[in-house]
Amino acid sequence: MRTRANILSAAFDIFGEEQGLFARIEDIATGAGVTRATFYNHFSGMGELREALSYEVTHDFLAAVTHTISQLPDARKRAAVAVRFYLDRARSDTRWGWSMLNLSASGRIFGAETYEQAERTVQEGMDEGHFLIPSSKVGRDILLGSTLAAMGSVTREETAADYPEIVSGYILHALGVSFDDAKRIASMDLPELLAPRNDAAASAE
Amino acid sequence: MRTRANILSAAFDIFGEEQGLFARIEDIATGAGVTRATFYNHFSGMGELREALSYEVTHDFLAAVTHTISQLPDARKRAAVAVRFYLDRARSDTRWGWSMLNLSASGRIFGAETYEQAERTVQEGMDEGHFLIPSSKVGRDILLGSTLAAMGSVTREETAADYPEIVSGYILHALGVSFDDAKRIASMDLPELLAPRNDAAASAE
Repeated sequence: MRTRANILSAAFDIFGEEQGLFARIEDIATGAGVTRATFYNHFSGMGELREALSYEVTHDFLAAVTHTISQLPDARKRAAVAVRFYLDRARSDTRWGWSMLNLSASGRIFGAETYEQAERTVQEGMDEGHFLIPSSKVGRDILLGSTLAAMGSVTREETAADYPEIVSGYILHALGVSFDDAKRIASMDLPELLAPRNDAAASAE
Repeated sequence: MRTRANILSAAFDIFGEEQGLFARIEDIATGAGVTRATFYNHFSGMGELREALSYEVTHDFLAAVTHTISQLPDARKRAAVAVRFYLDRARSDTRWGWSMLNLSASGRIFGAETYEQAERTVQEGMDEGHFLIPSSKVGRDILLGSTLAAMGSVTREETAADYPEIVSGYILHALGVSFDDAKRIASMDLPELLAPRNDAAASAE
C-alpha cells in the first residue's frame, strides 16, 4: 500500500502544476522513485491513475462540503455555498486548483462523485420549485461548467475579491432565481466548513 | 511542410477519441509514420503540438461562426447562435467534439482565439445594455463554461433534440436577459453557416 500511496502523492505533485496535464507515466514513476514496471503493478495505466487520484483530490473535500451544506434549508443556498467553497479553495490553494482543472479534463467535471452530487442538488432545487429548468442535466451543465471556467480564472488570473460570490449569484440566476434573491443568497456569510460526516472512522485510520 | 501536416493529422485522429487526452508523443509519431526525432524537428513537445492543433481545429470554424453572427443585430442573438453552432457541430461530428474537449483541457476553453472572441461578444452585450453583469470575465466564464459542459454532455450522452437551444437560452438568462426573451431568441431559426470572411484566399491555396 505504501508504494501505491507514494505513486499517488507523486502524481498529485505533478498534476498540481499548470503543465501537469502533460505528465507521462515515466515522470510519475520517477517522482515516486519506482520503475515503470512497479507503476504497472499498481495501476493499469494513466486512465486508472487519474481516476484514483481524482477520488483522492475530490472525495474528502466533497464530503466536507456536502456535510456543511446539508445544514442549509434550501437548495439555492446549498448550491451557492458549494460553488464558493470550491472557488475559494482553488484561489487559496493553487496546487489543488490545478489538480482539479487537470483532472477534470475530458472526463466528468471535478470527477464522477462531485458531478453526480451537483446534479442531485440541482434536482432538489427543482423539486422545491426554486430552480425553473427543464432538466437537472441542463442545471448541472450550467452549475459545473461555470464553476470550472471560474476556477480556471481564479487559478490563472487576478480576479476581484468577490469573484466567487459574483459567479455563484449568476449561476443561481441562470437556474431561475430572481436577480435580487440570487445576489442576496450568494453574498451571505459563508458557514464554517465542517469535517466530513461519515468519514470519521476512515480519516482516523 | 508535408511532415508537419502529417503529424497534425495523426494528432487530430488521436485527440478525436475519448481516450485521446492520454496520447503520448510516441503514439502520434507512430500514427504519422515518423520517428520521435522527426517529431521534435517540428514541435518542441506536447504543449506546442496541442497549441498548433488547437488552432487547426478551432480557427476556420470560429471564423465561419464569427462571420455568420456578424450579420445579426444584437449580441444576445450572436451569443445564442454561436453556442448552438458549437453544440450542433459537436453532436453531429463526435471526433470534432472530442478534439474540442481534449484540447480545452487545462488551457483556455476552446483555445485562446475562441476564448477572446467570446469575451468580446459578452462585452458588446454589456455595451448594448442587454447583459447585466459586472465584468466581461464573469460573462465569459458562464458562457464558455456552460457551453463546454454541455458539449461534454452532447458528445458523451443522449440529450434532448433541443438541448443546444435550451442551454443557450439559460446562458442568455444568466447574463441578464429576461426568461421570455432568452427563450425566444435561443429558439429562433439558425442562419446558414457562412464561409469564413477573410480566409477566402487562404482556403483556396
